[in-house]
Amino acid sequence: MSDSALARDKADSLADLKELFQLPAGVVYLDGNSLGALPRAVTAAVKDVVEHQWGDDLITSWNAHDWIRLPNLVGEKLAPLIGAAPGQVLCSDSISVNLFKLLATAIELNTGRRIILAVDEDFPTDAYIAQGLSQMLGEDRCELRRVAAQDVQAALSDDVAVLMLTEVNYRSGERHDMQALTDAAHAAGALVLWDLAHSAGVLPIELDRRGVDLAVGCGYKYFNGGPGAPAFLYVNKRHHARARQPLSGWLGHQDPFAFASDYEAAGGVQHYQAGTPGIISMAALNAALDVFQRVSIEQLREKSLALTDFFIEGIETRGLLASLECITPREHHRRGSQVSLRYEHAWGLSQALIEAQVIVDFRATDIVRFGFSPLYNSFSDAQKALDVLEEILVKGLHLDDRFATRPTVT
Amino acid sequence: MSDSALARDKADSLADLKELFQLPAGVVYLDGNSLGALPRAVTAAVKDVVEHQWGDDLITSWNAHDWIRLPNLVGEKLAPLIGAAPGQVLCSDSISVNLFKLLATAIELNTGRRIILAVDEDFPTDAYIAQGLSQMLGEDRCELRRVAAQDVQAALSDDVAVLMLTEVNYRSGERHDMQALTDAAHAAGALVLWDLAHSAGVLPIELDRRGVDLAVGCGYKYFNGGPGAPAFLYVNKRHHARARQPLSGWLGHQDPFAFASDYEAAGGVQHYQAGTPGIISMAALNAALDVFQRVSIEQLREKSLALTDFFIEGIETRGLLASLECITPREHHRRGSQVSLRYEHAWGLSQALIEAQVIVDFRATDIVRFGFSPLYNSFSDAQKALDVLEEILVKGLHLDDRFATRPTVT
Repeated sequence: MSDSALARDKADSLADLKELFQLPAGVVYLDGNSLGALPRAVTAAVKDVVEHQWGDDLITSWNAHDWIRLPNLVGEKLAPLIGAAPGQVLCSDSISVNLFKLLATAIELNTGRRIILAVDEDFPTDAYIAQGLSQMLGEDRCELRRVAAQDVQAALSDDVAVLMLTEVNYRSGERHDMQALTDAAHAAGALVLWDLAHSAGVLPIELDRRGVDLAVGCGYKYFNGGPGAPAFLYVNKRHHARARQPLSGWLGHQDPFAFASDYEAAGGVQHYQAGTPGIISMAALNAALDVFQRVSIEQLREKSLALTDFFIEGIETRGLLASLECITPREHHRRGSQVSLRYEHAWGLSQALIEAQVIVDFRATDIVRFGFSPLYNSFSDAQKALDVLEEILVKGLHLDDRFATRPTVT
Repeated sequence: MSDSALARDKADSLADLKELFQLPAGVVYLDGNSLGALPRAVTAAVKDVVEHQWGDDLITSWNAHDWIRLPNLVGEKLAPLIGAAPGQVLCSDSISVNLFKLLATAIELNTGRRIILAVDEDFPTDAYIAQGLSQMLGEDRCELRRVAAQDVQAALSDDVAVLMLTEVNYRSGERHDMQALTDAAHAAGALVLWDLAHSAGVLPIELDRRGVDLAVGCGYKYFNGGPGAPAFLYVNKRHHARARQPLSGWLGHQDPFAFASDYEAAGGVQHYQAGTPGIISMAALNAALDVFQRVSIEQLREKSLALTDFFIEGIETRGLLASLECITPREHHRRGSQVSLRYEHAWGLSQALIEAQVIVDFRATDIVRFGFSPLYNSFSDAQKALDVLEEILVKGLHLDDRFATRPTVT
């Protein structure tokens, strides 16, 4: 290991946080932007919820262990991490399902407008859900319109009901300017819905202060809530009086246990709950979030930028940009917490890295992502990734026949 | 304990199955129709998925441990338990969310018809979701119409797109005639959607043979999948070519990892997946279902009827029907796996039973439910519930001041 990386780790005030996670020995895990590592506290929390709360206390746990309020408790834990005052964040369902709820809300709130404006390059589920909503409602009530990222502001015509954007692009790691785009949407009479999947938990987000209307985010990336952890949604308080969503399940009723005949939406964000929440998965996320009591998002952001700077500079210094293209922006304010390299043989490169215990991921058709979680990644991790990357490219290990064909599901 | 109950337990060929569950000592648990007890195998399975699959193998587990196919694997495990041939059942989301998908499917499939016909007394979320869909689409495209259970057949007018029914009513424990009602719906040109929440896992269901179109069911009641376990849905193969649903998330895409711009629904039941599934909760359900390899549904049904017969006869013999009304049908073919008693002081009675370690539940406004799970409930359990019930009523323990006011959330 280079002196430089070791020195940086030694000077890193967050280095001890790594001990809060279970990480396999010898592995450099750079895929926390796809599935965050396991916080040690989660192991005990899940054991307790299964063996004690469910096993011993059974049905009484809905009250005795506050399962019934868990979606709100987790929502309120998340709220300060995304710059939301209490009462606006709920943990529930998946991002896809939450997008459906919020896009339906937006179309109904912004009467007379029918366009969902999105950018071409965002994570596909966002567009897919908009297409599903459009097909259901008919294009006279709702239609998805997509433009290139740089054309968003120009595309804010007077039929745009809602601008839907992901703060950090999942492929490039590029960060949008949340304030400028929110302001532009509002100036054009549109609402704005931010997908925080690749930014929440790793950089400061100020939903309230920036005047964001709606947002969704992910529990299993930088929040380390476990595979398929429940997602969250945010509805700005100023919309609570009028906001409605169509997945009107019983736990969104204002008095679920009255078992009334007709749906009466609970107030505020509460009626964005639909069915009974998956308590075990949600309890895992709940425990994972306690890590964030030990560190501020600002500290995490500082380390994240230092890690990605270190990695990008290493690629430059080693002359690897002759064959690889770094598509992640160099400017700090335009960067998330990953470095994405475009390369002709990206599939083989990703597989060769994984074989060498540097866990990255591949995004079709030609991108390798190196995701840095400042909670548990070190400068030594970045250094080892650079060393292995260089060795693979020099020796051509990624061109091995084994990597010639990419399986359909990866 | 009476000789009778002990003798029945001794003669019960399923008595040993109780050992597969963790049940608190001294407790008679009669609420498995609300939250099934913890199968011992689940403890180890959840530990493995958290500590080994997530903790050690991290992102690679999507393939290495087949997380990506878990919704299908669990669906196929459920299929024979509800009389479905392979390829028609998927584990996903909650019942509420799945109802939304399937009702939307039904309205679209049955072109030119707009009515969702339901009965007054079913679990409220079914009606609430129909109301949410109706409000979203507009009443000219979709409207909920409710009638009393006995009036369903007469209400099958030519504008009914889908008849939505729960096989076993959650309050009374009454079972509908699935074949007769399915046939009646079809004769009237309507589709039929069965909610199996209170029947799946405890009585034989033959979705394919009865020609059912659509169904949803619950993972956390008689299937013992844990609090808020994911639900499941069934779409009969004959509808696969045309069936579509609006929650078009990325995992329902025909090639999710191609990250294509536009949504292309996967074939069959597959596109009823929306977002990323909660793996920990789903793994718990997956392990819980292994219990059903040890016993047939027919055996479970036989024991379930014997248990509820025993309990109902005990109430009669003790003369308790002077004050309590048994609203669960006596005829076997009309009974689920619970006994429901209507009583003026139902809240107090339920709380006094729970204090005496007989765990039942209360359903507003005046019902106490005794749910029997033939996997782990014994005749001695039924006997003890009878003894405690009688003692409470004789001594008036349920009239204690502590039970005078019912909290809002129960």
